[in-house]
Amino acid sequence: MTTNTPPKISPPVPVAEWIGNAATGHLRLLEQTLLPTEVRFIDCTTTADVWDAIKRLAVRGAPAIGVAAAYGMVLACREAARQVDSDGGSFPAALAEKAEYLKSCRPTAVNLAWAVDRLLACVASLTGAQAAERILTEARAIHREDAEMCMAMGRLAAPLIEKCTGVLTHCNAGALATGGIGTATAGMYIAHAAGHELTVYCDETRPLLQGSRLTAWELTQAGIKVVVITDNMAAQVMREGRIQMVITGADRIAANGDTANKIGTYGVAILARRHNIPFYVAAPTSTFDLSLPSGEEIPIEERGAEEVTHGFGRRTAPDGVAVYAPAFDVTPAELITAIITDRGIIQPVDAGNVAKIIGGARE
Amino acid sequence: MTTNTPPKISPPVPVAEWIGNAATGHLRLLEQTLLPTEVRFIDCTTTADVWDAIKRLAVRGAPAIGVAAAYGMVLACREAARQVDSDGGSFPAALAEKAEYLKSCRPTAVNLAWAVDRLLACVASLTGAQAAERILTEARAIHREDAEMCMAMGRLAAPLIEKCTGVLTHCNAGALATGGIGTATAGMYIAHAAGHELTVYCDETRPLLQGSRLTAWELTQAGIKVVVITDNMAAQVMREGRIQMVITGADRIAANGDTANKIGTYGVAILARRHNIPFYVAAPTSTFDLSLPSGEEIPIEERGAEEVTHGFGRRTAPDGVAVYAPAFDVTPAELITAIITDRGIIQPVDAGNVAKIIGGARE
Repeated sequence: MTTNTPPKISPPVPVAEWIGNAATGHLRLLEQTLLPTEVRFIDCTTTADVWDAIKRLAVRGAPAIGVAAAYGMVLACREAARQVDSDGGSFPAALAEKAEYLKSCRPTAVNLAWAVDRLLACVASLTGAQAAERILTEARAIHREDAEMCMAMGRLAAPLIEKCTGVLTHCNAGALATGGIGTATAGMYIAHAAGHELTVYCDETRPLLQGSRLTAWELTQAGIKVVVITDNMAAQVMREGRIQMVITGADRIAANGDTANKIGTYGVAILARRHNIPFYVAAPTSTFDLSLPSGEEIPIEERGAEEVTHGFGRRTAPDGVAVYAPAFDVTPAELITAIITDRGIIQPVDAGNVAKIIGGARE
Repeated sequence: MTTNTPPKISPPVPVAEWIGNAATGHLRLLEQTLLPTEVRFIDCTTTADVWDAIKRLAVRGAPAIGVAAAYGMVLACREAARQVDSDGGSFPAALAEKAEYLKSCRPTAVNLAWAVDRLLACVASLTGAQAAERILTEARAIHREDAEMCMAMGRLAAPLIEKCTGVLTHCNAGALATGGIGTATAGMYIAHAAGHELTVYCDETRPLLQGSRLTAWELTQAGIKVVVITDNMAAQVMREGRIQMVITGADRIAANGDTANKIGTYGVAILARRHNIPFYVAAPTSTFDLSLPSGEEIPIEERGAEEVTHGFGRRTAPDGVAVYAPAFDVTPAELITAIITDRGIIQPVDAGNVAKIIGGARE
């Protein structure tokens, strides 16, 4: 089975979509906090709506946040123009203020600031309706480029996935986190569209359950066979020969290929090695941080205890008990079979090959 | 620090306790389904009460179930005597019927049937009040023997634990599962009582959270420092050097030392090996099944999908999604540093050493 020039493959549902024109349209977002029990879309008609949606995690995943913020800048542009009309002042200053406001909702989300700054730069001398038109065009470009990066990774991953009857993934590096068909999931969508029969084992991914809530949901929407397991079942699933490959996303990748990703990824990589199962990471160029020589330099964010002690609203641990809740871990390059990027496959994973594929081309 | 002849160490709370005398007393059980949010005891005054408590998992863990059923037989004895008084018939037949009823509530719980049969055998020719007295005495013996087995394992484990500042455990092989201070936890209680400062990392143990709900609770009651983690954080905890030892319980151990235990144990053992951390199993003689040459012969029970898809009462996976939920896994002997039994330490873990310590002495 081959997948040369696959048909255009769409995400199972649009995560972010601009409805209408630049002058009167609005941003429609999938309300991800209600998944998997309810599929509802929300309409953002103001910059504040977009800020709130990103803050509440209605939209999440670095690329998807970038796309949502990009469309949010069309709304910011209209609001800045109205403000200048009524109160006077300079349009660029008013727009810059709205841009800062948008960026403030998740200050560490690198794609958010990157998208907003790119849009600010492209309207340099335009104002009013012209600026809004230009920003919408550029926001659509950002959205399209993100979808194309997903497709590029997916085309490289699909032939690997087509050799497997079972694949395991951790957390959600899926369509719901991007403007396209996801990073880790892209190859699954392409292989499935080409008729390959695949079962995807989704680690539920405690504490926030992105695997069972989100990945299982989006793959099911596309008709891909999903089996949900708790995180501690992965070793048994591997031992029984149910999967022949692991593929995850990445939050940040150092110059030597060490990869920070959702907590639990490192453990899965160790289990895969023990069972001689290849472990792949799929990530776009923007995920690489070549300023960090190795994973040792990647800080590990710690999360609040409540996510562990109050699983799903109910207390599940003794009152006052201590909790350690690292949000990410670092998988050393030597445990990673290959990193699949939009520019090619890095294999074996080492500083030389990272430099060769990613080069000095950090955006 | 040494722990020679430690003072008698009691479980943090009594899991099962006979209140009063054989003629009018009753069984008091800790209602474990309410932990960790509420500590409530229930009084069982009929065989049906005990049956129901075991069925509902108000009392769980093979040794604790055996103890509860043993005291339940005192109630069965009184009911059988009353029945013979009012309706006629034979006392042994009436008691045997009650015994079968008790055994039926968890047919695969080996300690339950074992305790009930032992009590039936000891009243051979007694009836009425004499029989109830005799059964209470024997039930107390079963309870005491179980507590002594825990102490024996604890004395062997404590010196190993005292070399550590951090220990990781999985699921609940604690006082709450036994008539004493637990199997895996026994050494922790003894080391703590001797003044050793210890932090116990408790895997929460999805899907039923015995680690965060039960182990974390009972150790906290005893004043031992506990840190709860989600199962997928164990690898990171090991990598950071926070623990120097893993110790778990066991559900069944084959003749070669392969060990079936709660799902996730096998993965933890692999992670421990990767980090050069010793991995211990603590289990009484009754856990060994020498009729099984290896773990290959241990059947793996599968649980219902709801435990995974409806974590804590709320749906956390898409409607209708497939789930794979093995309840146990098998850790191969080669990943186990030693098995700590009430009769001595099996190390290295192989068929020869299992035979030497456990011998043909299966009860």
